[in-house]
Amino acid sequence: MESLRGRLNRCSINTATLGHREPLAVTIDRIARAGFGGVAPWRHELDAANLQDIAKQIRALELTVTGYCRSTYFPAETAAERLAAIESNMRALQQAAEIGAQCFVLVVGGLPAGSRDLPVAREQVAEGIAALCDEAGRLGVRLAIEPLHPMYAADRSVINTIQQALMFCQTIEPDGTRVLGVAIDIYHCWWDPQLSESIQAAGEARRIFAYHVSDWLPNTRDMLLDRGMMGDGVVDLERIRNLVENAGYRGLVEVEIFSKERWWTTAPDEALQMCANRLQSVC
Amino acid sequence: MESLRGRLNRCSINTATLGHREPLAVTIDRIARAGFGGVAPWRHELDAANLQDIAKQIRALELTVTGYCRSTYFPAETAAERLAAIESNMRALQQAAEIGAQCFVLVVGGLPAGSRDLPVAREQVAEGIAALCDEAGRLGVRLAIEPLHPMYAADRSVINTIQQALMFCQTIEPDGTRVLGVAIDIYHCWWDPQLSESIQAAGEARRIFAYHVSDWLPNTRDMLLDRGMMGDGVVDLERIRNLVENAGYRGLVEVEIFSKERWWTTAPDEALQMCANRLQSVC
Repeated sequence: MESLRGRLNRCSINTATLGHREPLAVTIDRIARAGFGGVAPWRHELDAANLQDIAKQIRALELTVTGYCRSTYFPAETAAERLAAIESNMRALQQAAEIGAQCFVLVVGGLPAGSRDLPVAREQVAEGIAALCDEAGRLGVRLAIEPLHPMYAADRSVINTIQQALMFCQTIEPDGTRVLGVAIDIYHCWWDPQLSESIQAAGEARRIFAYHVSDWLPNTRDMLLDRGMMGDGVVDLERIRNLVENAGYRGLVEVEIFSKERWWTTAPDEALQMCANRLQSVC
Repeated sequence: MESLRGRLNRCSINTATLGHREPLAVTIDRIARAGFGGVAPWRHELDAANLQDIAKQIRALELTVTGYCRSTYFPAETAAERLAAIESNMRALQQAAEIGAQCFVLVVGGLPAGSRDLPVAREQVAEGIAALCDEAGRLGVRLAIEPLHPMYAADRSVINTIQQALMFCQTIEPDGTRVLGVAIDIYHCWWDPQLSESIQAAGEARRIFAYHVSDWLPNTRDMLLDRGMMGDGVVDLERIRNLVENAGYRGLVEVEIFSKERWWTTAPDEALQMCANRLQSVC
């Protein structure tokens, strides 16, 4: 059991994996009891709980917070809405600092309603991220841009490849203070013909702040909520894990599975046990 | 009416847009009657018809065949299966030549069942395409690699960006005989942060063999069969059309819409009329 425990200690569970069915404090306890060394909670969970109590619980359980999910979308039709998004994200940074999160996960947003202008939306994202960097640095919370799969470009993220996310990092923070980096999620990037080069470049820039696993199911039935358990799909998890490790990443592996019909209908402890098994056999 | 007719004459209809509900000869007549200058038929339609009759009909109507859809997938578990795919594609090239198609559309295939090895699948694709080039050149049929959206990487195509498709072209056919090129379909590539550079590179290499339009609907309900009519989604069609034209493309614009619930349940002539309207207002 010691080696099992030892390895799970380097693994984290994103609370979305359990479907947000229980209060955050219950979820955190389950994750710690199952032997995982980390957790990544969501803002709506924390907003529904007592921030100080959760922070205390996390410290007591000695859990690493591998990420705090996630930013309010940056692009919007009006300047007032864009400012409101930045202010919302500033408040989230405070929460991220309070729970000791290793990074605040930036899911940057898609096109504003009615817009077809990707270049403008991308500019708005760059402006929004730039506005957070000083405060993030002051609070000691890193910002991890998570490029989302291109199928989310309209609705959720106009940043869709690791290479593109790195361009944003380099443009916004060229001096290398390294507040800004990327979260690499295999669900979003497994297909990328530039994957190897991009992960290597992210590592050389010391900008890999998080590493998320799940799996891509053939004949995916739902574009958002049909992610697979590691090993049930087509992603070569071992190859990507090697790329990330060879790029110098030494952080935890975080499981993030949105699975409405399969894993969100499975008892939480059973889902956690399966995550543990698969993390040790295929990741 | 003359200017309308004149512009539609530079437009083509992929028969999939009408949902394959009628025999190919009927569909071709409808498309010509509606004033379009081109058509792109599918192999299963042609296999169900008399090849010589269809070829004669297309010539009589003076339609440009903007593409012949599509290749048998190249990657497969066994060498025998891969050889069978190449042979199937050789037969399709004969048909493409018979109907005077400007190109044979290569939708290259995803991962073989049970495989997680993208690099090997991509090698098998390269081998398969290479095996077709001589025959394609002899027949005067160009081969257009159509990069598909990354959400099809597992099931339909391990080539997912224009840049990647160009790499295949350059590797397989470095001497520039230009049998090999790309089909640019905005549904698959609209999100690409490298879109402008990739289209320009494709143009400079004189490898843009086809240009397909439709639209990406926000909140897409089906990953395969929920494409939008041009103007109903978020794609900046004018920007992409300008990129393609500035890259030197002078061919027809082809409409290819898979839309099970909306356009495949609309009367064919009505769908064609809407295509005509939108081609002239938003494309």
